[in-house]
Amino acid sequence: MPSEFDLIRRHFTRPAHHTELAVGDDAALFTPRPGTQLAVSTDMLVAGTHFFADTDPEALGWKTLAVNVSDLAAMGAEPRWALLALSLPAADDAWIGALARGFFACADAFGVDLAGGDTTRGPLNLCVTIFGETPVGSAITRGGAHRGDDIWITGSPGLAALGLAHLRGEITLRADHARRCLDALHRPQPRVAFGRALRGVASAMLDVSDGLLGDLGHILECSNCGAIVDTNALPLDPLRAAGADALLARRCLLSGGDDYELLFTAPATQRDALVALSRQQALPLSRIGTITDTPDQLLLREADGSEHTTPHNGYDHFA
Amino acid sequence: MPSEFDLIRRHFTRPAHHTELAVGDDAALFTPRPGTQLAVSTDMLVAGTHFFADTDPEALGWKTLAVNVSDLAAMGAEPRWALLALSLPAADDAWIGALARGFFACADAFGVDLAGGDTTRGPLNLCVTIFGETPVGSAITRGGAHRGDDIWITGSPGLAALGLAHLRGEITLRADHARRCLDALHRPQPRVAFGRALRGVASAMLDVSDGLLGDLGHILECSNCGAIVDTNALPLDPLRAAGADALLARRCLLSGGDDYELLFTAPATQRDALVALSRQQALPLSRIGTITDTPDQLLLREADGSEHTTPHNGYDHFA
Repeated sequence: MPSEFDLIRRHFTRPAHHTELAVGDDAALFTPRPGTQLAVSTDMLVAGTHFFADTDPEALGWKTLAVNVSDLAAMGAEPRWALLALSLPAADDAWIGALARGFFACADAFGVDLAGGDTTRGPLNLCVTIFGETPVGSAITRGGAHRGDDIWITGSPGLAALGLAHLRGEITLRADHARRCLDALHRPQPRVAFGRALRGVASAMLDVSDGLLGDLGHILECSNCGAIVDTNALPLDPLRAAGADALLARRCLLSGGDDYELLFTAPATQRDALVALSRQQALPLSRIGTITDTPDQLLLREADGSEHTTPHNGYDHFA
Repeated sequence: MPSEFDLIRRHFTRPAHHTELAVGDDAALFTPRPGTQLAVSTDMLVAGTHFFADTDPEALGWKTLAVNVSDLAAMGAEPRWALLALSLPAADDAWIGALARGFFACADAFGVDLAGGDTTRGPLNLCVTIFGETPVGSAITRGGAHRGDDIWITGSPGLAALGLAHLRGEITLRADHARRCLDALHRPQPRVAFGRALRGVASAMLDVSDGLLGDLGHILECSNCGAIVDTNALPLDPLRAAGADALLARRCLLSGGDDYELLFTAPATQRDALVALSRQQALPLSRIGTITDTPDQLLLREADGSEHTTPHNGYDHFA
């Protein structure tokens, strides 16, 4: 019977496209293109903390890579290589095969070579490191937001959180809505092309993994500024249409994580360009607020015009 | 009370030396030097599989980085950056502080910037990704060994395995010997300077992590060749001096892992240069055998001149 090592080798060995030496030596070898800066990130996904142990392994394979790809999208960088380290309890051929299928579906979708990795026995844990390129000086960090900048969000944030609420039995969604929300949760679509198009346009950016307000707080902290979010401008319609009441829709949108949409700031002079880009890439875009110069102050402006501060409700794994 | 996240931030935030953007954004940014190729590797260390849960956290911090640095040493590459992803059960200030102390002691010793990472809650798991540079085309892989090449090993392999045997109560070493062996086990010294000096000299190389014979097997497989190892030439004296009998010394040297010495092949024309290099770097070097052209055949030649094949006794985490 083949060992897990054999199974990993069989399912995870694929031809590399732009890697001089991939899986099988002490290190992988590759050469970033001249004039580029390397953008690198690592994310560890742990069974029981980030996903249920019985999660569909193909979806898990996709998501494991996708959340890392999303980190590069949030820098405006182009993903190029990845390493996968995994710790596995006893696992069977079908499970590892499905994991690999999902992983490579995402790798192929975003032009990523699996350049190497590590396999060991232990509690289920998947750790991807991703490497991308961006022209020197073009990366979009969290630290560049200025007073008066608009605040924008891509797509329909909150669908993943609504899917999770459905899984937890807090709400029962209609089958087609459940499918769409669970797809957002299990197969997030990193906004790589959109992120690249924002080079020279966005002043600060990150991807929403822990909740919109909490992640906006990271921009405020890094940029030493504040923000007013206009609740009227929030893209709540997709959540309402999927069956969430007003309160749940708002909670999912503002505090839910796992959507991997891009949250960014840009000068008001970029509005037309951004609306055009949204149309061109067929990706909805919502202008949800404005950057202020009051450090770390996050205000919500309600429909009646009243304003109130809000804590940064990011999801804390240790809370 | 500070959360584990706060503790990690406090203890693991240090100034970076050659990283444009380190910890705190979606990705780290750095620029490999022109003319270099990137060598990258990842290793996952899991409590219960790779170390005892009650291991001294400072030693664990050192080793977590050191085993990755060693992977680059084994390519002849220069370590430059690392990412650390860790999954932690509840942990206290003293434990995390000691882990960081050990990690940065190793980082400082080898000129490595901690460029970023990830922290989450879960079973104890440490995953480092290391990035190094090597002039384009100079990396030493496992695949370049040729018939007639000498086989060399640095240092005193087997001391770590002897330390482990002592920990397991299979042998009781004298206190000073135990200290030396446990030091080899807990604080391996990656052979970075020696590895770099072997560019253009060694034909194939790896670091011994899973046992000398098993790892030699990897060179044979990648280079499509065989080997004769001369048991008379093995550096058994340090193990005998530490208290191991002949049988245990041989087992520790040939099948023990975790030493992170360099095992390499080189043409016989390099003997004088290698002896000089060993003296210059004050690192013992043993010429223990010869590469043959019989694919995958690993022969041991005993003191009486007899030869016999041996299985590749690498340590298999799933065995």
